[in-house]
Amino acid sequence: MEVGFLGLGIMGKAMALNLLRNGFRVMVWNRTRSKCEGLAEHGASIGESPAAVVSMSKYTIAMLADPSAALSVVFGKDGVLEQICDGKSYIDMSTVDADTSSKISEEITKKGGRFLEAPVSGSKKPAEDGQLIILAAGEKALYDEVIPFFDALGKKSFFLGPVGNGAKMKLVVNMVMGSMMKALSEGLSLAGSSGLNQQTLLDVMDLGAIANPMFRQKGPAMIQGNYPPAFPLKHQQKDIRLALALGDENAVPMPVAAAANEDFKRARSLGLGDLDFSAVHEIVKATGSWGDAV
Amino acid sequence: MEVGFLGLGIMGKAMALNLLRNGFRVMVWNRTRSKCEGLAEHGASIGESPAAVVSMSKYTIAMLADPSAALSVVFGKDGVLEQICDGKSYIDMSTVDADTSSKISEEITKKGGRFLEAPVSGSKKPAEDGQLIILAAGEKALYDEVIPFFDALGKKSFFLGPVGNGAKMKLVVNMVMGSMMKALSEGLSLAGSSGLNQQTLLDVMDLGAIANPMFRQKGPAMIQGNYPPAFPLKHQQKDIRLALALGDENAVPMPVAAAANEDFKRARSLGLGDLDFSAVHEIVKATGSWGDAV
Amino acid sequence: MEVGFLGLGIMGKAMALNLLRNGFRVMVWNRTRSKCEGLAEHGASIGESPAAVVSMSKYTIAMLADPSAALSVVFGKDGVLEQICDGKSYIDMSTVDADTSSKISEEITKKGGRFLEAPVSGSKKPAEDGQLIILAAGEKALYDEVIPFFDALGKKSFFLGPVGNGAKMKLVVNMVMGSMMKALSEGLSLAGSSGLNQQTLLDVMDLGAIANPMFRQKGPAMIQGNYPPAFPLKHQQKDIRLALALGDENAVPMPVAAAANEDFKRARSLGLGDLDFSAVHEIVKATGSWGDAV
Amino acid sequence: MEVGFLGLGIMGKAMALNLLRNGFRVMVWNRTRSKCEGLAEHGASIGESPAAVVSMSKYTIAMLADPSAALSVVFGKDGVLEQICDGKSYIDMSTVDADTSSKISEEITKKGGRFLEAPVSGSKKPAEDGQLIILAAGEKALYDEVIPFFDALGKKSFFLGPVGNGAKMKLVVNMVMGSMMKALSEGLSLAGSSGLNQQTLLDVMDLGAIANPMFRQKGPAMIQGNYPPAFPLKHQQKDIRLALALGDENAVPMPVAAAANEDFKRARSLGLGDLDFSAVHEIVKATGSWGDAV
Repeated sequence: MEVGFLGLGIMGKAMALNLLRNGFRVMVWNRTRSKCEGLAEHGASIGESPAAVVSMSKYTIAMLADPSAALSVVFGKDGVLEQICDGKSYIDMSTVDADTSSKISEEITKKGGRFLEAPVSGSKKPAEDGQLIILAAGEKALYDEVIPFFDALGKKSFFLGPVGNGAKMKLVVNMVMGSMMKALSEGLSLAGSSGLNQQTLLDVMDLGAIANPMFRQKGPAMIQGNYPPAFPLKHQQKDIRLALALGDENAVPMPVAAAANEDFKRARSLGLGDLDFSAVHEIVKATGSWGDAV
Repeated sequence: MEVGFLGLGIMGKAMALNLLRNGFRVMVWNRTRSKCEGLAEHGASIGESPAAVVSMSKYTIAMLADPSAALSVVFGKDGVLEQICDGKSYIDMSTVDADTSSKISEEITKKGGRFLEAPVSGSKKPAEDGQLIILAAGEKALYDEVIPFFDALGKKSFFLGPVGNGAKMKLVVNMVMGSMMKALSEGLSLAGSSGLNQQTLLDVMDLGAIANPMFRQKGPAMIQGNYPPAFPLKHQQKDIRLALALGDENAVPMPVAAAANEDFKRARSLGLGDLDFSAVHEIVKATGSWGDAV
Repeated sequence: MEVGFLGLGIMGKAMALNLLRNGFRVMVWNRTRSKCEGLAEHGASIGESPAAVVSMSKYTIAMLADPSAALSVVFGKDGVLEQICDGKSYIDMSTVDADTSSKISEEITKKGGRFLEAPVSGSKKPAEDGQLIILAAGEKALYDEVIPFFDALGKKSFFLGPVGNGAKMKLVVNMVMGSMMKALSEGLSLAGSSGLNQQTLLDVMDLGAIANPMFRQKGPAMIQGNYPPAFPLKHQQKDIRLALALGDENAVPMPVAAAANEDFKRARSLGLGDLDFSAVHEIVKATGSWGDAV
Repeated sequence: MEVGFLGLGIMGKAMALNLLRNGFRVMVWNRTRSKCEGLAEHGASIGESPAAVVSMSKYTIAMLADPSAALSVVFGKDGVLEQICDGKSYIDMSTVDADTSSKISEEITKKGGRFLEAPVSGSKKPAEDGQLIILAAGEKALYDEVIPFFDALGKKSFFLGPVGNGAKMKLVVNMVMGSMMKALSEGLSLAGSSGLNQQTLLDVMDLGAIANPMFRQKGPAMIQGNYPPAFPLKHQQKDIRLALALGDENAVPMPVAAAANEDFKRARSLGLGDLDFSAVHEIVKATGSWGDAV
């Protein structure tokens, strides 16, 4: 089976390699062509443009940095739309909002192509190990056909219904994650201020019903005040904001997420937006200049 | 090694059995004597009163229902204080507040006895399986001596420092747990109202960084609207309230826990206090009688 | 001085009458022509279309129901744009969002016209009494020229800077108002549940530092459970949501407004959206169907 | 009519003077005797102790700094209890919690005396002008008898029912006040960050439905960053905390007050507790030391 692959950033490169390793023939394209050459060494062919890749491939997968990159690869000069047609399929695995996804879907299908959005949960390591979680939505028949690709890329894929549901599912998960991160931060702060050992709190939690990988991985670093950016705080806050907006449409009260959101905003206002989202823990250490006045 | 054991409720009975199974000689007492006989069949001897048990035992463990039971067993007629003395130790594994614990500690040590508070994390099943998590605080030398008991009762024990810290650690853990439960409920509600499958949300979360046993166990039942009481909602709310009060002393802002607390209060106001704490999920289904007016 | 007036709803009619009473010659237009006749009896002339009014007037004031009406009167067939030109001015006093306002401003000025947005604070009674508060933004020179109109319509007008600032100022004021309404509701609930007389609470507050007309007017009706719609709850919630979105851009943490917003959403989910915004008080009376289960 | 008066702080001195001015014969006592002399110049007699004042007076009014002072004047050596008896009445106008009030009430009435708690709303200026608001609770017949005193001291008095209700009413009012202060702060911050003039926001609000003396008085100083302590922030936070605890008893959800409370706690954690409660506005200006890291 032959497949096109657009976008060779950290995630895309690892994914394209996994496709090659699993015996697929892959034609790659990347805005900066030099990144394609590393893939060529592993057997990939190189396309000159998104349009060129699509013209040669029945299926084209995209893994792009953000909504604007996702849009420009489709709508731009030499873009996907110039070659997409009946019999060809486009699978966008970039993380984009539901609106962007719908816009791309609409134009692809107008031209006779088929579309699937398939954002992933998981970052660099799971991408390299083929252990991503794939949140697919769009055309069910296409989903069934591309399972072999997804099996090479992830440990599990879900079909979630109409286009937009992949993006929404990510928002819901990230909203819960943001509230949990803030809950962890409050627990650590309360422990510290109450004379309890913060690492022991992590140890106790890790043995019980609320044990989870995030507390295990981020907790010790938060105690140290280290926040190496895996998932930037400003993106976490944006996702909670969008989830709250989604809830607003149907009048779903979510006061815990709303409270967490305000603290992530507070962290942004303190200049922490580019650190890891666990840096929300720093807001308890904020200081003022009122010592003399008081 | 010989040990006294006071209190044979669901938890206490399972714990006393584990001590017997691990080869300790155990003298038991319970307010309702009939419960002692089940233990006698497994080799326990029976004491006539807390005082009688203490008089015969170097170490006495208590596992009582609540602070008032814990106080009455110590301070009441034929209570622990009548026989505790130099060379004897009292380990209270009941879940009580720091004040109750301190009061008991003070009187025990005045009489020359040694004291350890050791509340546990875990309920019936872990108690039966000897898999409790033990949060001990008080006299370190005594903690070291009674490790063999704790090894029989739990999978892990922690020594947390001065009396009161065991109770505080439980509050912090339960506060984080309450915020997480509310976060889960909000995620399920948002998924449901956005056209996403709620069980799929649970499946997706269970594969990623926030996967945890509580979501796995409670989530499916919450979708069904089932809340078999494992940890009553009113106790969960009380623990968050006490944790917030602890934070108030040191001015630790905890807005997510505060928001969760208000929703647990709302659930209480709807008559859900005796259901499981996961019943906080029901508040989104509350209805009014304004249909006609609107 | 001659002035055109577009839109004769409850507010617009009262405002046009005040202009006539103050000696201005007014040409009116309304989508439903019959409403114009009441004004003609007071001396107004009638225009056949927005374009016709603009062609005859140096200044045209609009007071329309919502953003879509505001847009259609400008951009539609026989609309304002067809006749606006150098030497003519358009003052939009409708309540619209900053984006709508900017869009209108842009096209008016492209044609050589001058533009002022001037949303008002106050409802029917102040409109009739010429006691509105006018929040103007746009071209300062135009503001200075039309002060005579504003003097006829309001007790006070403000010039707030560039187009969009009028809309923003309304959002900020309405956000504070929404938080205050929720604070009042919580106070009434707490008083009631604590054995205090709710009317006495209102009386006490009305004598002190937080005395305000809203508590005085809405409070007694809230105790009775009456919510005659002066400002619909769904609009109040929308304004808080938009204010929070405005704050998000600059990372301003506003946890009290966020908490109030979630309760207004809860009220919407209970079907209270079309009642007065004071109906947020009803959420404390929501009930479930768990009586038997508990 | 003759009356005893205990406590000549800022408030008490002004109140005792008003009683004298209104023609009552007053016997005063103060822990620091020198303060009595100023009153003697205006015609007061001086008592050697609380007991001495009570022995000479049918009615004794107390205005003490805090609960511990209120308790010690009653229960201490030469205290009120030593002379209170059938036919004598004690009116405590200090601001104390409901528990303290009940404790005093109980002992006074055991000795045959009659009791009224009567905390006031209003500070130095209203005390001097006889414009306090008096929140009385306890024995209704006594309340009716002492109306002449209250007429001299305040512009309005309320009888609120059983002892404790005076304290509770103050908590409810102060809770609403705290939420409003936080709402004001958020409005000012949002205005400032959105390019609106903050003073204009105050002006606009002061003309509409939410106009209130607190916004008028505190608002301009908050813009300047001035917080002269009229009502200390730590007391405001304590009152919200106590109000939330009162609500907890009856499961009244109060998320806006809870969110405000967390921000007042945050302000305390920044060292602002002794400034005026309007200093909660400073938390938006808190800074960190992460500039380099980001």
